[in-house]
Amino acid sequence: MEKIRILIAGFGNVGRGVVAALKRNPDMELAGIISRSPERVRKEITDVPVLHYDDVAGFLSLKADVAILCGGSKNDLPLQGPRMARYMNTVDSFDNHSRVPEYFHSMDDAAKKGCHVSIISTGWDPGIFSLERTLGGAFLPGSRAYGFYGLGPKGGLSMGHSDALRTIPGVVDARQFTHAIPEALDRVRKGENPAFEPGDMHTRECFVVAAPDADKGEIEKTIKSMPGYFAPYKTVVNFVSQEELNEKYKGFPHDGTVAAAGVTGEGNSAAIEYRCVWGSNPEATASVLVAHARAAARLFAEGRKGAFTILDIPPAYFSMLDHEELLAHWI
Amino acid sequence: MEKIRILIAGFGNVGRGVVAALKRNPDMELAGIISRSPERVRKEITDVPVLHYDDVAGFLSLKADVAILCGGSKNDLPLQGPRMARYMNTVDSFDNHSRVPEYFHSMDDAAKKGCHVSIISTGWDPGIFSLERTLGGAFLPGSRAYGFYGLGPKGGLSMGHSDALRTIPGVVDARQFTHAIPEALDRVRKGENPAFEPGDMHTRECFVVAAPDADKGEIEKTIKSMPGYFAPYKTVVNFVSQEELNEKYKGFPHDGTVAAAGVTGEGNSAAIEYRCVWGSNPEATASVLVAHARAAARLFAEGRKGAFTILDIPPAYFSMLDHEELLAHWI
Repeated sequence: MEKIRILIAGFGNVGRGVVAALKRNPDMELAGIISRSPERVRKEITDVPVLHYDDVAGFLSLKADVAILCGGSKNDLPLQGPRMARYMNTVDSFDNHSRVPEYFHSMDDAAKKGCHVSIISTGWDPGIFSLERTLGGAFLPGSRAYGFYGLGPKGGLSMGHSDALRTIPGVVDARQFTHAIPEALDRVRKGENPAFEPGDMHTRECFVVAAPDADKGEIEKTIKSMPGYFAPYKTVVNFVSQEELNEKYKGFPHDGTVAAAGVTGEGNSAAIEYRCVWGSNPEATASVLVAHARAAARLFAEGRKGAFTILDIPPAYFSMLDHEELLAHWI
Repeated sequence: MEKIRILIAGFGNVGRGVVAALKRNPDMELAGIISRSPERVRKEITDVPVLHYDDVAGFLSLKADVAILCGGSKNDLPLQGPRMARYMNTVDSFDNHSRVPEYFHSMDDAAKKGCHVSIISTGWDPGIFSLERTLGGAFLPGSRAYGFYGLGPKGGLSMGHSDALRTIPGVVDARQFTHAIPEALDRVRKGENPAFEPGDMHTRECFVVAAPDADKGEIEKTIKSMPGYFAPYKTVVNFVSQEELNEKYKGFPHDGTVAAAGVTGEGNSAAIEYRCVWGSNPEATASVLVAHARAAARLFAEGRKGAFTILDIPPAYFSMLDHEELLAHWI
């Protein structure tokens, strides 16, 4: 069997994760990387071609089957996604939940025009969690599916909130860990289907390196009053040294739980829960994206075209195993 | 929109569960029930036609879209399944894992000949658990997915093992509860991917009503040496009165967990877990079967035919919600 050839578009933490994940998927291989700063990437990657994002003839000549788009949802994907979908099959982790319908239709148009398959908004959330929410609603009608993040002792590192902290004057560096409130999860498990406000489910813990001359009181006040990001939450701000931040709060740990509970029959309780715990959030996301690239290649081979989400794909398409093997040992 | 009309074939605990589940799925309605003993069923069900299993012209005139087959996997489904698949779309919970490939092909042939859709081997295990095992393997290559049953304090009632107990001379009635060994699950969560023997993951607890003149020592010995069922497991046998059995050990509670753990990148831990806790196992199974009947009707409307498992169906097909609603609020 010929291997599925993967092009990585954008080389940050998720792009690095894709390189690592491909080594665990023997039916796939890395064809090349495209980036806006190929020189930077070439310092790290020497065994495959690294081309400029605008070198279309160049990257098409690599004959990759699927491009995994690792750019950001805010500035990169809204333009990069439809552009790439015209040229080849794509997979991405577009995670701006409120703009998913708009992005889906823009990708659907582009992919149909290019006769390609584009799988959007996948990874673990959106992605696996979207799937588990939908299955919860379908298998337990009347239940509501809730997402909790950072149940483990460390909590979950939020990149978006860490970035928000670093925009504050006087902040040199910062990382934000989200913690789920266990009592809120208990209420969901009991089938209460509560009407939570954002601050009822999670708290936020900030580790901030302040500039020597900065007013820490002012920084703390600014953080705690940031609308959307921190104001609705119980927020703890810890000032630490850069060394402490680098040593004690390094890496990208994250974890999450989707929980739904309802009743069957005349009132028998029924509860379902999906949980994942990742030592590295971007590597886990990348591992899920790679399985979706396999599905994209298969859908394309069947002559399908347009945009797909995880909800539109038969789960067997994610697996390396053939159908007879799945029937014999996995059902 | 016209409602999806459901025929129930076989009226035991799961059939009763389907009647209850349809009340929570407003896009569906009960068209009728077929049974080998329609008189018995008519004592309970008076609002829809109850026909004999052999009255083919009669049940086809009910114009049901999908038959949910609630017979047993050992004696009923191997013959009933292919027979019904010739007449109409079907959904079943065939759960004899080692014979799934054979059953799939027999249903695939029959459904293709009848130009129908047959979804086989679904419910929670096989069914949701098959899906979660497959996703675990696809998203975390190198991990192994393990199934644990009866982690809750009561454990999980096993119908098959209860039936086995009741075949022993001197046993008037009995129920068997399976308990997971929490330390075994902990080893899986840590990513050890252990090579378990059956007795390493679960213990078995039996509640037995003995005949007044029975030799309890002999019964206990017979139970503990039953090959396959009890011999490989740590088994506890409790003798109780019929009243105690009926009161303290009633109902059909069950719960289960699929767990898989591996690594990403250069060794970051990654673990996933799906858990369900059911007050009533047959009602939960029925609720999942009903969502699959929706998928069967949709696949049929698209002109598909043949056998399908949960791995072959886009998850959106299980949901009452339309695609735009799923994109807007569930991704």
